[in-house]
Parts: sequence; structure tokens; C-alpha cells
Amino acid sequence: MSLLSDISSPADLKKMSAESLPELAQEIRQEIIDVTSKNGGHVSPNLGIVELSIALHRVFDTPKDKILFDVSHQCYTHKLLTGRNNDSFKNLRQTGGISGFCNIFESEHDAFGAGHAGTAASAALGLAAARDRLGDDENIVAVLGDAALTNGVTFEAFNNIASTTKKMIVVLNDNEMSIAKNVGAIAQYLNEVITNPVCNRLYSDMNSFLKKLPLGETVIKMTENTARDAKGWFVPSPFFEYFGMMYLGPIDGHDIALLERYLNYCKRATRPILLHIITKKGKGLDVAVRNPEKFHGASPYNVVTGETLNNDKSIPNYQDAMGQALVRFAKDDKKIVGITAAMASGTGLSFIKKELPEQFFDVGIAEEHAAVFAAGMARKGFTPVTAIYSTFMQRAYDCAMHDVCLQKLPVTFCLDRAGLSPNDGATHHGLFDISFLRPLPNAVVMQPKDEDELSDMLWTSIQSKLPSFIRYPRGKGEGVKIKDTPALLEVGKAEILQESDGEICIWALGNMVKEALSVAKAIEQECGKKIGVVNARYVKPLDTELLLKCADSNKTIITIEDHVVSGGFGSAVAECLIANQKKCNLDIIGWPDKYIPHGTDVKTIRSQFGLNTDQIKDRVKKYL
Amino acid sequence: MSLLSDISSPADLKKMSAESLPELAQEIRQEIIDVTSKNGGHVSPNLGIVELSIALHRVFDTPKDKILFDVSHQCYTHKLLTGRNNDSFKNLRQTGGISGFCNIFESEHDAFGAGHAGTAASAALGLAAARDRLGDDENIVAVLGDAALTNGVTFEAFNNIASTTKKMIVVLNDNEMSIAKNVGAIAQYLNEVITNPVCNRLYSDMNSFLKKLPLGETVIKMTENTARDAKGWFVPSPFFEYFGMMYLGPIDGHDIALLERYLNYCKRATRPILLHIITKKGKGLDVAVRNPEKFHGASPYNVVTGETLNNDKSIPNYQDAMGQALVRFAKDDKKIVGITAAMASGTGLSFIKKELPEQFFDVGIAEEHAAVFAAGMARKGFTPVTAIYSTFMQRAYDCAMHDVCLQKLPVTFCLDRAGLSPNDGATHHGLFDISFLRPLPNAVVMQPKDEDELSDMLWTSIQSKLPSFIRYPRGKGEGVKIKDTPALLEVGKAEILQESDGEICIWALGNMVKEALSVAKAIEQECGKKIGVVNARYVKPLDTELLLKCADSNKTIITIEDHVVSGGFGSAVAECLIANQKKCNLDIIGWPDKYIPHGTDVKTIRSQFGLNTDQIKDRVKKYL
Repeated sequence: MSLLSDISSPADLKKMSAESLPELAQEIRQEIIDVTSKNGGHVSPNLGIVELSIALHRVFDTPKDKILFDVSHQCYTHKLLTGRNNDSFKNLRQTGGISGFCNIFESEHDAFGAGHAGTAASAALGLAAARDRLGDDENIVAVLGDAALTNGVTFEAFNNIASTTKKMIVVLNDNEMSIAKNVGAIAQYLNEVITNPVCNRLYSDMNSFLKKLPLGETVIKMTENTARDAKGWFVPSPFFEYFGMMYLGPIDGHDIALLERYLNYCKRATRPILLHIITKKGKGLDVAVRNPEKFHGASPYNVVTGETLNNDKSIPNYQDAMGQALVRFAKDDKKIVGITAAMASGTGLSFIKKELPEQFFDVGIAEEHAAVFAAGMARKGFTPVTAIYSTFMQRAYDCAMHDVCLQKLPVTFCLDRAGLSPNDGATHHGLFDISFLRPLPNAVVMQPKDEDELSDMLWTSIQSKLPSFIRYPRGKGEGVKIKDTPALLEVGKAEILQESDGEICIWALGNMVKEALSVAKAIEQECGKKIGVVNARYVKPLDTELLLKCADSNKTIITIEDHVVSGGFGSAVAECLIANQKKCNLDIIGWPDKYIPHGTDVKTIRSQFGLNTDQIKDRVKKYL
Repeated sequence: MSLLSDISSPADLKKMSAESLPELAQEIRQEIIDVTSKNGGHVSPNLGIVELSIALHRVFDTPKDKILFDVSHQCYTHKLLTGRNNDSFKNLRQTGGISGFCNIFESEHDAFGAGHAGTAASAALGLAAARDRLGDDENIVAVLGDAALTNGVTFEAFNNIASTTKKMIVVLNDNEMSIAKNVGAIAQYLNEVITNPVCNRLYSDMNSFLKKLPLGETVIKMTENTARDAKGWFVPSPFFEYFGMMYLGPIDGHDIALLERYLNYCKRATRPILLHIITKKGKGLDVAVRNPEKFHGASPYNVVTGETLNNDKSIPNYQDAMGQALVRFAKDDKKIVGITAAMASGTGLSFIKKELPEQFFDVGIAEEHAAVFAAGMARKGFTPVTAIYSTFMQRAYDCAMHDVCLQKLPVTFCLDRAGLSPNDGATHHGLFDISFLRPLPNAVVMQPKDEDELSDMLWTSIQSKLPSFIRYPRGKGEGVKIKDTPALLEVGKAEILQESDGEICIWALGNMVKEALSVAKAIEQECGKKIGVVNARYVKPLDTELLLKCADSNKTIITIEDHVVSGGFGSAVAECLIANQKKCNLDIIGWPDKYIPHGTDVKTIRSQFGLNTDQIKDRVKKYL
């Protein structure tokens, strides 16, 4: 690791000879593989973008110039080249280590943070508008994956680029994959461009032209006229030209010298320009190339076999339990369909995709469309199950309100990753969904205590024909047996797991039920007191009947949820107790009003915020 | 009114002779003008789409066929032709009358409800996917305004159309306006299409071809081959073809016979098709044609002069107070900019648009981009003021969380229409914003008691450099004088307006402060009791210090907000009291957990839900 360790800033990179860059790229790939195989992380996107990141940092000058990575899960090389090629990278995504995403608080080289798709072009355009008004001259580069083109925000930005600025570079990093294989008309268009023989010939001409230019000289005066003349080099039917952007490409995204030439050309453009580059996702790691979806975001893995380390397959993930239950139900009812926004694997919809492909839809990273499309199907009598991570549901919030709940349509939303996504951090934790869903009339909001209850809730939601939101955490279930025939739950009814002796009753939601039982057990052992434990099941409608009974028969109600306190489950309990003039104590345990950072694991982060079992136990004991 | 009154269903329309249709159109226009001049409503969009609506209902058979109107504020003719040409239309947008939007609970002819832009193509695609899987054969038509093309959701849907169905019709009703003049690259593209002489010649050829076909026969066999051959008739550079849709047009959207021929052609297409029609917004009402932005959504008006009726100009609207304050502040600071999503007039940003155009951005109906673009500008040291109606802020929720609050960027969101939008109804009321914003860390959420405090809050938000959300109601302010120099408020501090005698203290938010004062005054007159009144100002951060003092010195705290109870301001108060073990009574007064329908005015709707002054007074008195 000699070349990489010598780079303390992009200035060092610029001093390197062009000949040494392939070796540097190799070192960076090795470092990414070393670290992600231990820590997990976004393997394939980062292996694909090594050369582009090197070229960007040789051509542009951060922090003055701004490079914005869409989603920013492909920022590892950028981080390694901007002063983070040390222990902070070894501890990538761990407590005390750096984030797996760009973060403006981490480095001045991170122009804009991201974790959700589609925002880079919008943010870059904001920076460009501000720059233009101040008369500054920095370059602004938005690096988009092709998946950004399935996302509405990107098009909203594209529509505004030409009328807002003359100077903005969009690099389209096209690997024909977002997370899964890309879908839709634009993906097909890009594929046609890449395979178009005319386009390939034009690309060769353009390339020879650029090669002939004296290095380092700004001979390419990109006036509007020459730009128009130059169009001859570009592909026919240039989709992006409709958005007022000059289109350039496609070129090999692994050829650093070529990338540098093109990026220098872009730098001098006098109107917005889109450079289309082709890269290979996972390049340099065979197992990742062969299985790009698995290695998009991977847990620690064996570098040779690609196998996930420490993977106890005896206990299913929540996502897989959901996905398998959905297949069981959908087999007997053709009107049950699964809808994902490019997350078939992450949401467990890969099972229905494989087994009942006619009942599966992947709409690309397009959560809003996923929700409205589901509403459309529901209007025709279907019962769609739309699986979206809790944090990405924020994108479809208006659609949940305006298209689903208002029309009382039977769409079930499965909100995976509700709670912590520990290694990803603040952009990926699902800690706000109860608060934003609770105000929506007609919405049923629930969380199961284990994977069997998840199956029951999915079944109940489908049968109930109500707009439903089932939240559940990332990762392993509780290891319980999943019934072959699901139970039909009574909507809005909680479950008493343990009676109290009249002092304290804990109302726990979802994965916190297990914690509540542990706390109750520990307190009983320590003090001989019997703490009541209720599995709340439904946040909305809340089981007010049982809650009011508990309030009458206990001095203290304690709520525990894997969610922020503000407006969450405990807040719903508070509203109910207040509306009924109950005067028992109430303590609401949940996440504080802060963005929770990434960390090594759930346990570590919970401990930092007073939410591990012992800490909760001590808090509960105070009410005895 | 003889022709229109004879139509009790679309079947009657189909029986009419083609010759009588212009007269019918004239009658419909007159009815729309008669009713909207009294009731207010979406005048221009509805006057522009009369002929298209007639043609649609002559060619298609609702309710079997599905016609989806994007935003659906242009559905009046559709409603008049589907059994609502009676008193229900006379009472359009009034209590007891029909909705100004499509509503699935109102008529079986309303295939899908809407009030927000951009959802029609997604919903139509959902209906089409469901139809295809069931083997049904109904036609599905999404009618989009050109404004839908500034909106990301539409593109998410477009990207999925061709891979999802072979049979779906998109009618693009292009009037070169959404609400204001359309912005962006696609609007410019459409303009080029319309003015393209080649395209106009091709359109004539196509038109002659269609005219030659025997009427009523299905001679146009649209196989993939003939579709490809037919391309010669269509415009060059067909943007929509990239999305796998056949493009047809542009044609005159006021020629019913022509529209019928083209729609019949679309009906038989064997792949998704987009028909581009050109209409005149406001057609038939001179004042509307001359001022399409004002007459997009208008209050009751004088048909001849166009003047708004009963418009007391001595008291400014909240929106104008905000817009004028913004101009005052922005004049001295070039880094203050105003951003709107196609609502310059409705949000009061028309003032900055006119006076400081360099500091104004209209991004089109693209709330997500508006928010992220603002975040980008803020990252470069600007302090953008992004004005979005409360209900449309739901679209930008993820961006508020992920791009603004997480990065603690100094963007101020002005949420107009927080509270009721009485004539518009459930899609337009802004009753959920506190609940969805409250969980976001770093967010400052506030509501002024009057237009002068709005000016203070805007100033304070800009100076504080914190992510801020100022909510305020639709309509007139309180008529107070607005200070020339705004006060810098202390963030998170409430204002005591009236001390209590130790029994009850009302914490009122925003426009409810006035109600609280009225209630307190009435109670004092009735019972001699002195009710405390606090102007809460900030929902977040809440003035916990003052609240806890009030809790100690009063038996009862009552909160009043123009927002749903679930997770709202009162809920925040409850959380604070609970966390501090306060045992005073608390009563949370706000809107119930229901979609609130449209109605004649705020007063009428409040009375229906127990929220008028007298009703609140009676509720408060119970605690004495």
C-alpha cells in the first residue's frame, strides 16, 4: 500500500504520473475489498467507480470544486483520496469510523451528503445557481448512477438545469444496474445507446479528436456554435438534449486517461453537459461481478467464495419471513401482488419475483410511483403489498396520504428497516415512520413482535382491505416458528403477555416486546415485583380499551418503541390517556430528538443512547 | 340550458348529433362561469377542457372505461356530463355540494381522485396492470396538463409504462400553462413542437388520412409495423417515444370532431400512446384568457370585469404579507432568495418575482426539487425561502429530512394553507404538517398569531440559519399593522398574552390565538374567571420552561391548534408534561382523525367538528 498511503490530499494525486494510476487503482480496490469484507458495505458500486473517482480528483480541485455523488454509497475512493485513507477508513461504518456515505460534517471535500437516490442533480443545481449569483467560478459535478434516472427528483432537476445555469456537469455512471438490474424505458434507451454501432463509431472519432489536442491547453473553445458543430460526434436521438444538456459519450469509465480528457472537455463547456460513462459494477472482485445485487450492499464476506460471514441461516431475516409469507398468500390469490422500488432482494420480494413473476413489479427507485401504482391496482380490486424501507417511505408520504389513505384503498406497505440500520446511519435509520403515518386518517399502523406475527399481520392487512403499514426491523427475526396458516388478528387489539401486580405495565411495540420481557424478568428477579407486559401490536388504531384498563389498574404505564419519542407510539398512548383523564404515570422510552449516527451494531448504538436492556431496566425500576 | 339539462349520463351525450355539440360546449362554459363566479373554483383549466371532455365521453364508456384527470381540478365538464348537472353542481365546493375534484366516493364515473399534481399516469398504469392481469379490456385514459411534465412522479410512471402494459392512453392537454407560465426544458420542447412547421404539415397529412377513414369502422389496425410506418406523420424528435409511447399530435383541443377521430385512433393502438392536444386556458371568458394565473383558481368574481368580489384589500392575505416581507428583507441581502413550485401568486412570491427577479426561482410543480435545490443554495451560504402549501410539503418530506434538516441547512419553508382550504377540501387542507415535521431533528416549527408576527418569524428564521418551517393559514390576516423593522424573536419562546387566575391556561397556536382570546373573554364575562392565554409561537423547540411553569400554576392546560390532534402541537405539549411528571389536566383541541371534507367556509366546517368559538368555550368551561 505505498501509493495510496502517500496521498494525503488530492494535490498529491495530481502530482502522480499517469503511468502509476493503474497501480493506485489496484491498491484502492484492494483496500475497499479488505475493509468491506470485514465491515460490510457497498462493495460493487465502489469497485466500479475507482477510476472515475481518480480522474475526477485529478481534473477538479475539491473542496473548491464540488463533486456530488448521488446516493453517495459509491464514495469510498473519493474518501480515500481526500485524507481518509487511514484508520478512519479501516473503521468504515463502525462506531468511531467514517460514514459509508458523503457527509458534510466529516470532510470539506464532501460537498453534499446523501443516502437516498436522486438528489445530486437538484443539489448541484442549487450550488450552481448560488455560484452564478456570486460570480464565483468553481466547477460543479453531479455523479449519478443510471438508477437516478428511474427517480422523479432527477427529472425535476433536469427540467430546470438549462434555465438555471450554463455551467454544470452531470456524469452518468452507467453500469446497467442500480441495485438490481435496472428497469424501464430509460434503462432500455441507455442500453440501445451503448450497443449502437453508429454511436460507437462516433465515439471513436471524438476520442481521436480529443487525443490530438495538446495536453493541458484550453484549445477547445466551446462556444454555442462549436458545440452545435460537435453534435456530429454524439449519438443520434440524444435524449438528454431535450433537457438542454449537451450529451457526450458513452465512454469507457475504467480508462483514467480517457476520463481525464473528457472531464477536461466538460470543464470548459459553456452549457450544461452530460458525460455518459460505462463501468462494470464490482470490477476487480470476481464474486461481486458475478453477483452484483448481493454485493451492492453486503455484510462481511469471504473474499474468495463470496459467502456471507457469520450468517446463521437457521433464523430468517424479517425481510425474508415477509417475502416468503407473501408468496404463500399470493399463490392462492392472483390479486395479491408484490411491488418494490428496486429492492427485491432487500425487501424479501425476491421470493415472489422468482416464484410468481406475474404477481411482481419492480418499478425502479421510484417510491412515489410505487405507491400510486399500487393505489391504481387496488382501485381495480387488487391487494398490493408494497415493500419500501421505512426511510424511503418518506419519499412516498404524500402518495400514502393523497392516493392511498384518502381513498381508503387496500394497499399494504411493508416498511422494512424500521428502527436502526446501524452501519448506514442517519440517512437509513427508520425512526420517523410512526410520527408521519399516525396523523393520516384511515391508516392502520402496526409492528409485530416477531416474524410469525409479521406473517399474521401481513395476512390480516391483506384480508382487512384497509390502508396498512407494517413496520419491522432490519435483520434477524426472533427465531420463532412461523405458522403454516396465519392467524387473522383483530385490528386494533393488543396482546397481554404478562399481568402486572398493579405497579407498572409496559406497553412495548414490535421488537421492543422482547426487551420489555427481559426487563420484566430482570426486575422480578431483583425485586420480586411482577411487571406487566403488553404487546401493543397496533399503533393505530390503538387498543384504547385495554390501555385504559391498564391505566386504571397500574400506577405507571411505560411505553417502549424503536422509534423517536416525538409523535411516536408513546405519544399516541399519551393522547389516549389525556383524552380520558387518566392520571397514572407515563414514561415514553424511545429514540431522542437527534439524528442517530452510524455505529458498529444495534447494541452499541442503543447503549450510547440509554436504550440497552439494563438501562431501560434501571429507568423502569424508578417507578417502583 | 336545454341541451345540458337533457344529459343524465354519457349515454345521452353519445346520442347527440355532432352538429349540436358546439352549442352544448357553449352551455357548459356558461354553466361553469355562472357557478364559479359565485362559488369560486378552478375557472381557466375547466374552460379550456370542455371540448376534450365532451369528446372523451363520446368515445369512451365510463364507468367501464377509466378516465383519470391529473390534479383533477379540470373535471367540471366531466362532472356535468356524468349526472352531476344539477343542484349538486350549483353548490360546487360548498357544504352539501360536490367536490371541485374527482372523488371516487362521489361518482362511479370518477375513476381516481386527485388534488395534487402528477399522479394520474401512475394510477392509470396501476389500473392498466390490474386490467391486463384480469384479462379485461376497458380503456384507460390519463389526462395530464403540461404541468404534470414538470413533476417527477409523472416521469417515474412514464419510465414504467412500456414495460407494464401495451394499452394505455395519455392525453397531454397542453395550454402552455400549469398554474403560472410553465418553466423548464420540457415546456420549451413542447413549445418547439407546436411551432415547428414540419410538425404542422405532418399533422395536416395525418388529419386528412384520418378523415378519409369510414366512420365507425375499426380499419386502423395498429400493429407494431403500421405504428412504425405511421411515424412519418408524427413530429420529428419525439421526446415521448423514448418512454416507449407512440406520440400523436399536436392537434387542436377545441375541435370536437377532430378529437373524436384521434381518440378513436388511440383506442385501437396496440402500444401506449400519447395524444398531444393544444387548448386555450380560460377559453370563453375574456377576463380569464387575459389573466390565466388569477383565474386558475379564483374566488367569486365579476364575470365582466374579472374583479374579485367582496375583496377587502385593506387587510392583506397571509401569503401577501409573507411575500412583501420577503421583498423587504431580500432587498438588503442578495443571498436571500425565494423559491416556488409553480405557485408564485398563491404563495405571495409574485412580489419578489416582480421586484427582485434575480432572487426568485420558479422550478415548476416539483416540490422535491424545490427543497433540494434550496438545500444546495443554502450549502453555498444562501438563505432560501421556499414557499410551499402545507399539503404539498408532503411531497418534499423526505427532502426536508434528508437534505435540509440532517445537514442543518438554513432553508426556511413557508407553509401556506396550513389549516383549512375550505372549498378545496381533503386534498388541500394542511392539517398534518406539525405531525410529520415534529420528529425531524434540527427542525424549527412555528406558527404566527398574525401577519406581523409572520414577518417577525420570517426574519428570525432567516437570521437564525436553522432549518425552519413557518405554517400559516389561507386567507386574510388579522388586520394588524406590520412593523417596518421586524422583531428578532427568541427561538423556542412563547408569549404570555393573558395571565390566569390559577385554573386554566390555554396554549394556542397561530390563528387559534385569536380564538383563545375570544374564548377567554367570553368565559370571563360569563363566569368572572380569568383564563390564561399563551401564544405558543413555537411547536419545536417548545417553550418547555414556560409550559412547566404554567403546569405548576394551573389546574388545567388546554391546547388549541388548527391541525389534527394526532401527533400535533398538543401532543408535543403532552410529551413535555409527561416527561416532567406534571399531573395537571390537559385537553388537546384540534381536528379529529378524519379526512375533513370541503365546505362553504372555515366557519361552517369548524362548526361541524365542534371547533367554533362557542363550542370551544363550552369545552373549556368544563374544566372550571
